[in-house]
Amino acid sequence: MEYGDSSPGEYVVRREVLDESRLDVVAQKGTWSIKPTVGDRVKEMLRCSAPRLKDVLLARIPVLAWLPKYSFRENIIGDVISGCSVGIMHLPQGMAYALLASLRPVLGLYSSFYPVLVYFIFGTSRHISLGTFAVISIMVGSVTERLAPDSNFMVNGTNGTESVNIAARDSSRTQIACSLTVLTGIFQILLGVVRFGFMVTYLSEPLIRGYTTASACHVCVSQLKYLFGVKPARFDGPLSLIYIVAATIITYFCGLRSEYFIDVVGEIPSGLKPPRAPDTTLFSKMIGDAFAVAIVGYAINISLGKTFALKHGYKVDSNQELVASGLCNTIGGFFRCYAVTSSLSRSLVQESTGGKTQVRNKFINPALGCCAFPQAVLSTIVFVNLKGMFKQFIDVPMLWRTNKVDLLVWLVTFVSTILLNLDMGLAVSVSFSMLTVLFKTQLPSYSILGNVPGTDLYLDTEAYREAKEIPGIKIFRSSATINFTNAESYLESLQEKSGIDIGKLQTEKKKREALQKRNQKKEKKREKDEAKKNVWMKNSQNGVVLSMTDADPNFPDKGQVNWAYHPDRVTLDSDSNTYEEITTVSHQDELGKHSNCRSGTHSIILDVSMISSLDTVTVKTLKNIFRDFGEVGVAIYLAGCQACVVEQMERANFFSDSIPKSWLFVSVHDAVLRVLQTLQPETDVMLDSSCNTHM
Amino acid sequence: MEYGDSSPGEYVVRREVLDESRLDVVAQKGTWSIKPTVGDRVKEMLRCSAPRLKDVLLARIPVLAWLPKYSFRENIIGDVISGCSVGIMHLPQGMAYALLASLRPVLGLYSSFYPVLVYFIFGTSRHISLGTFAVISIMVGSVTERLAPDSNFMVNGTNGTESVNIAARDSSRTQIACSLTVLTGIFQILLGVVRFGFMVTYLSEPLIRGYTTASACHVCVSQLKYLFGVKPARFDGPLSLIYIVAATIITYFCGLRSEYFIDVVGEIPSGLKPPRAPDTTLFSKMIGDAFAVAIVGYAINISLGKTFALKHGYKVDSNQELVASGLCNTIGGFFRCYAVTSSLSRSLVQESTGGKTQVRNKFINPALGCCAFPQAVLSTIVFVNLKGMFKQFIDVPMLWRTNKVDLLVWLVTFVSTILLNLDMGLAVSVSFSMLTVLFKTQLPSYSILGNVPGTDLYLDTEAYREAKEIPGIKIFRSSATINFTNAESYLESLQEKSGIDIGKLQTEKKKREALQKRNQKKEKKREKDEAKKNVWMKNSQNGVVLSMTDADPNFPDKGQVNWAYHPDRVTLDSDSNTYEEITTVSHQDELGKHSNCRSGTHSIILDVSMISSLDTVTVKTLKNIFRDFGEVGVAIYLAGCQACVVEQMERANFFSDSIPKSWLFVSVHDAVLRVLQTLQPETDVMLDSSCNTHM
Repeated sequence: MEYGDSSPGEYVVRREVLDESRLDVVAQKGTWSIKPTVGDRVKEMLRCSAPRLKDVLLARIPVLAWLPKYSFRENIIGDVISGCSVGIMHLPQGMAYALLASLRPVLGLYSSFYPVLVYFIFGTSRHISLGTFAVISIMVGSVTERLAPDSNFMVNGTNGTESVNIAARDSSRTQIACSLTVLTGIFQILLGVVRFGFMVTYLSEPLIRGYTTASACHVCVSQLKYLFGVKPARFDGPLSLIYIVAATIITYFCGLRSEYFIDVVGEIPSGLKPPRAPDTTLFSKMIGDAFAVAIVGYAINISLGKTFALKHGYKVDSNQELVASGLCNTIGGFFRCYAVTSSLSRSLVQESTGGKTQVRNKFINPALGCCAFPQAVLSTIVFVNLKGMFKQFIDVPMLWRTNKVDLLVWLVTFVSTILLNLDMGLAVSVSFSMLTVLFKTQLPSYSILGNVPGTDLYLDTEAYREAKEIPGIKIFRSSATINFTNAESYLESLQEKSGIDIGKLQTEKKKREALQKRNQKKEKKREKDEAKKNVWMKNSQNGVVLSMTDADPNFPDKGQVNWAYHPDRVTLDSDSNTYEEITTVSHQDELGKHSNCRSGTHSIILDVSMISSLDTVTVKTLKNIFRDFGEVGVAIYLAGCQACVVEQMERANFFSDSIPKSWLFVSVHDAVLRVLQTLQPETDVMLDSSCNTHM
Repeated sequence: MEYGDSSPGEYVVRREVLDESRLDVVAQKGTWSIKPTVGDRVKEMLRCSAPRLKDVLLARIPVLAWLPKYSFRENIIGDVISGCSVGIMHLPQGMAYALLASLRPVLGLYSSFYPVLVYFIFGTSRHISLGTFAVISIMVGSVTERLAPDSNFMVNGTNGTESVNIAARDSSRTQIACSLTVLTGIFQILLGVVRFGFMVTYLSEPLIRGYTTASACHVCVSQLKYLFGVKPARFDGPLSLIYIVAATIITYFCGLRSEYFIDVVGEIPSGLKPPRAPDTTLFSKMIGDAFAVAIVGYAINISLGKTFALKHGYKVDSNQELVASGLCNTIGGFFRCYAVTSSLSRSLVQESTGGKTQVRNKFINPALGCCAFPQAVLSTIVFVNLKGMFKQFIDVPMLWRTNKVDLLVWLVTFVSTILLNLDMGLAVSVSFSMLTVLFKTQLPSYSILGNVPGTDLYLDTEAYREAKEIPGIKIFRSSATINFTNAESYLESLQEKSGIDIGKLQTEKKKREALQKRNQKKEKKREKDEAKKNVWMKNSQNGVVLSMTDADPNFPDKGQVNWAYHPDRVTLDSDSNTYEEITTVSHQDELGKHSNCRSGTHSIILDVSMISSLDTVTVKTLKNIFRDFGEVGVAIYLAGCQACVVEQMERANFFSDSIPKSWLFVSVHDAVLRVLQTLQPETDVMLDSSCNTHM
């Protein structure tokens, strides 16, 4: 490489053409066995020592790592101010969100208190503010109202009318919410222990935003009843949102506001209550809901956590966060809390008021006892908090312009979450989001590359006008990796783009071979006849006669037919599908000696640089390409294979005498040069004349 | 490009360094809007004309296309021979497989007759032989025995013992099997109409082989009872296989063979029966089974069809095959057939005896009436037919050597199909197989590339010993595309591999800035003090005094501290995390002017050639990388972007003043050269000294 040797902005490369086997020598390929084996890695993982134990302990109980280093002088003031501000926010939010969960407001206050203490010990994020959250609250609400609907608690009043036994209902709902929370926590701990934190990556940004927007719609609808003071029953299951909306609108406009008095949140009991075990018999009825709450809660937590961590330069451990959330919920569930996650609004307040460490969590003020907020006020608080989520509707036009697949994910998430429910909607959205990844792999774009004259660049001939195909050589490229989902379409597209229909050519070849045999038979028979005739002529005339079979091969009629008989020439020339055509085109054999069929293609270079790993289907497909194209006289070369893919090919016995490793080139340019060098005598023909001119 | 100019096997490239914006000019990038818009494509799809209608008709009813061209002279003899051979095979196979489906043998014969006629009209494959098949038969059997178990048909015999009313049971089972077949057919037609034929790609080869091997085990176990003449009840659902096996073994060894007489298949009714409508009330009980039969049946069909098509050079249309299978089953179901698919053994016989077109299908011989085969003989026929499937166990050691992921797919398919059942097992296997694709994308390998001296090649420094890193430049590459599932791990790995911890550096930077402010304040204060002092000195001494601030900057103690104040220098040098360190290392600033931190890295080149398409998460991640690394003084360049990805970047407003398009280079080598050119004055330093020597 001689850079600096040329005029500024230009460079010169002078090197040998490299195939993979030569590259191994030149670049001194190391043995891959340096990598630890699976056994070694397991051994390493199970190794136990004092420093290792300390590391594990610090990773699992992060408070031990940061609290001893806590600098009172630097942080205490900011933390106290931030803690108090967030504590004050917790009060109305906790109470308001408890209504969403169809629980007594005091439970929202409990939920703002206990889990925070647990997070202080186990959490790794310094800025997120754990507590009640609208989306989670409404998910909890859908469970409490399903398992303990008002209709279960009807009692006959003194005047004969039925009324709801609110105390019994609320007590039952509290039990349900706490059990759900414990189960949610258990799921989170389990997922964290098996290191499933990575699954949060499937909750991509468009998905989360579509989901929270849909949740906000659910929340909104559920709040209308408080805002207008009407009490529709909660419908459940698919299409529930549409019924609720319709019911509320009808009720409102039909003037059923006669019972229009303001609900107040009721007395808030003072003091804390002792822990109580959850009702495990309820678990089987809420597995799906608990799982959805676990995932959604964690997703919100970790996305906020990561955002702040990136901004402030520290790390959050996704698996540890999962365990921390799980412990918060499990322990909280015993203390009458319902499922918690972090909220953006509180976390932002906390960050902006200067909270720097988990210590500010200790300053939140449970402030038990006090206040008789009107419920409509709490509803308003909820609405204000949801403003940001509704703003996310502007994602739709933005994604329409930038990325239609992500728009589809957003819309499918939104619609499925609105129409189904929060848990089923999440499942559908995640599945759909995974499918988009599969489909993107399954539906790559295929292109034929051409050389940009004067460079070693090979670009899509359809995208760049200056990219010119090299006559006789097709360079084929897939925009994505090849695996079992798209191996077949790769093969199909290769045939289509290169204009070489393997099936057709093979049939033609067989027909020709059959024809050849027939003709050979005829020829033999004729020779016999001739011999007989000659013998007869000899016998009859007793003179020397020029045999017909020794006739001048350039003799027009005879010569042509003879050419068609020649096995070598016929095999290479397949520019015909009937016997008639063979005889007329066979004169062109000399020019197209190395070229196949109509397209004049003699070599195909597959740019396989996009392959990231090989499965058996791909190996088989590539092998078939080598075999089938080889059979119709087209040579196949691979270019730009990644080192790990070459490794996999070797393990799969890809290379053989029929597919030597030297047919793999480090770049398309190397492959092209090697092909042209191999064809040296024909090179001039190849470079001067395009495919179409000599056909 | 000047090839041929150099010695043989060597080549020279002399061209300018190209970034994407320059490339657009040089290679004349075309507008992508030439592509038809979505609207145009829909319009084109809905366009109606006579030739188009003819095309559609020929594609949907292929018999119209090939029968008029059928050459009696060429094909009729082969077809008749082949048809008769296959017809003879159909007889025992049909009867034997009907037993697997717990049906009367005659239904197997019907199934070998009607569907073939339908396939003759609608099918596109010329070689597959439709009819009964072991795996499908046992799937049907699991449904018939579940919905119509023997226990439902117990009658009290004359001597007080209970016996099974066989006639009623068989009639009921026939009704069930036919209804299942019709539902299966409806699923196949629907899937074909919505062009879902592509989904067969998810049934990869290891999956199909694992599945058929497990099915063969199921079949085997179900045949043991006939072979040994014992009659265990059929267990159903998960773990069923283990119970059956156990029951059979116990029964056999406990000597319960007292009722050891040979079952015969019973009389076979002669003649054909009129069609009968399926019992649609059963549909709801068999949706899952019907779907599984539809998918498995189609998968076997199409995999055989494609194999023969490739071999004989014609095309099978996967969607048309789906519709054809569906019609065979739907129509067959009315005529007392049960679900059919093609069988490898029959298809091979057909091919080898010279069957060339669908015409031979007409020659199969239903041969109704006759024979009283012992059931044990039929069982033996089944076993012999399964031999090939059991041979597939050798896949396991083969895959262990070649491809462990595919081995995992094989094993998961096998185990889940054995433990769960044929329908659930299939669902689990397909999901798992899809997940492997996702995981492969999600868990790529990341590497740092180095230059192979004397070439323009950049290879993994861990795999190739000769690949040398260029001091100050890190070249980073992911082995797979980047999408929302792995964007975060990409960022993490980039930080880890490049040794640049963004979070830490940003914190340090902030600390330094705070320190700087404090020091500036101090400095100002001191200046004020000095000024006061000077004034005081002036005032007191009335002479000219050299101010301390004008002191020689090389003065050792003072000079160093002054350097640390300099905003420019401090921003670029971040090789320290405490104030103390800054003062001691600041002398190295002149050398490391463009270099960052411990690693001395000033530029990072991301080889993004593996990105096949961009989603919003990836765009955001890349933007963040530019911003965050830029903030700590490391320049980011992209290399090797595909044309379609550049297009997506433009649509996502990726390029801006802070990320100009000229930071995208066509290759890593172009990017490296541009970086080195930019650093011209320092180039020598960069090339001569490694990172470690001047640290």
